[in-house]
Amino acid sequence: MEWLKDDERLDYLLAEDLRIIQSPSVFSFSLDAVLLSRFVSVPKNKGKIVDLCSGNGVIPLFLSARTKADITGVELQERLYDMAMRSVRYNKLGEQIQMIQGDVKEIPSQLGVEQYDVVTCNPPYFLAHELSDKNVSEHYAIARHEIYLTLDEAIESASRLLKQGGKAAFVHRPGRLLDIVTSMRKYRLEPKRIRFVYPKFGKEANTLLIEGIKDGKPDLKILPPLYVYDDHNQYTKEVSEILYGEKQ
Amino acid sequence: MEWLKDDERLDYLLAEDLRIIQSPSVFSFSLDAVLLSRFVSVPKNKGKIVDLCSGNGVIPLFLSARTKADITGVELQERLYDMAMRSVRYNKLGEQIQMIQGDVKEIPSQLGVEQYDVVTCNPPYFLAHELSDKNVSEHYAIARHEIYLTLDEAIESASRLLKQGGKAAFVHRPGRLLDIVTSMRKYRLEPKRIRFVYPKFGKEANTLLIEGIKDGKPDLKILPPLYVYDDHNQYTKEVSEILYGEKQ
Repeated sequence: MEWLKDDERLDYLLAEDLRIIQSPSVFSFSLDAVLLSRFVSVPKNKGKIVDLCSGNGVIPLFLSARTKADITGVELQERLYDMAMRSVRYNKLGEQIQMIQGDVKEIPSQLGVEQYDVVTCNPPYFLAHELSDKNVSEHYAIARHEIYLTLDEAIESASRLLKQGGKAAFVHRPGRLLDIVTSMRKYRLEPKRIRFVYPKFGKEANTLLIEGIKDGKPDLKILPPLYVYDDHNQYTKEVSEILYGEKQ
Repeated sequence: MEWLKDDERLDYLLAEDLRIIQSPSVFSFSLDAVLLSRFVSVPKNKGKIVDLCSGNGVIPLFLSARTKADITGVELQERLYDMAMRSVRYNKLGEQIQMIQGDVKEIPSQLGVEQYDVVTCNPPYFLAHELSDKNVSEHYAIARHEIYLTLDEAIESASRLLKQGGKAAFVHRPGRLLDIVTSMRKYRLEPKRIRFVYPKFGKEANTLLIEGIKDGKPDLKILPPLYVYDDHNQYTKEVSEILYGEKQ
């Protein structure tokens, strides 16, 4: 099949509405990216959105089901960018989604400063020195560790892209909460909404969703918790609906 | 009855184990103070604890059920200090709990710098200019608004009292999360544990519990959510046990 290379698969997104190209050895999207694409506030119709650290394009693809706004995905790695491009074409979303291969640090000068309504980013989670598994593929290492991009740099680029009043949404580990809010305020992104994701009832949070507004007024809300698995280790109704779409 | 003045009542704490003097017109303790006294990490036996902004002494009284450590309560307002003193005497806890009438900003020089293991504080929640209800009693106004003490000053005093490795725990509104963590880091209190309190399942958090360690290493954990009311508007099992003690 001409669409797939090597060990790539064509997986479903949102039941049978969308397809995405993935590869176990190169890159597969995480639940965190999906949760971010549902969490972020997007304009329903017109607008311009950028997704930084786009990977195989999962966030632009999911967002296309929520908004008619123009979406630009930015990915550093050619191999992942190529997967994302083919997924966009396979889903016939080339009119709405544009993929760019580029460095997030340089992208505001390339795309234009203060031009965008919304920026999403699922950045590398781990510090470069935390890269202990030498056997991990280079693609995964770069996507997951702050090798080419630090959290602070990602937040700076997001802010530069945004208009005044534009919104930036990030997903990360709760342990980095203080670093995120410190960098957000440093770059004029006032944190407004936080949602913590808990693997199960009674466990500590393992994921953090946060949205800020450029030059917004301080007024932080902590949204209801999001639980991923129920007591039977099945996805909760909320996560299941995010992943597979609302049941009819 | 000699113990009570004016419209004061002698209310139960922890079922029938403790009593506390309250007054509808002067001061009644809040659930938040109780949740803080359960949330904070305390040494079981020896140790020195200070409770700042102690009001009618609810946190020292509750803590006396969890630890044998010496507890000092600090309260600015003479009328509240007097209620707390009588509650301590009524419960025959004068050996363990010492109440001091004083200004939190001055208290580290008075009690001694870097001498304490744990500091708790349920500070005034609202900014001074948010005092809109002119009919509120002066006692409530001072307890609830940053008239004589700002959040930043409370956190500075807590830090000065603490030994290296000592723990400070605060309760506040989630909207002040960023201010709290900023002040904590400014005064060397590294946030380690946060627990959000939600009035009900599916609602936004309305209370924040946070504990930091003086000169601790960054490693923040977001604990499981605490729900106050269940779907039938009754206290949840967890809150009921905190308020009334474990059922036998």
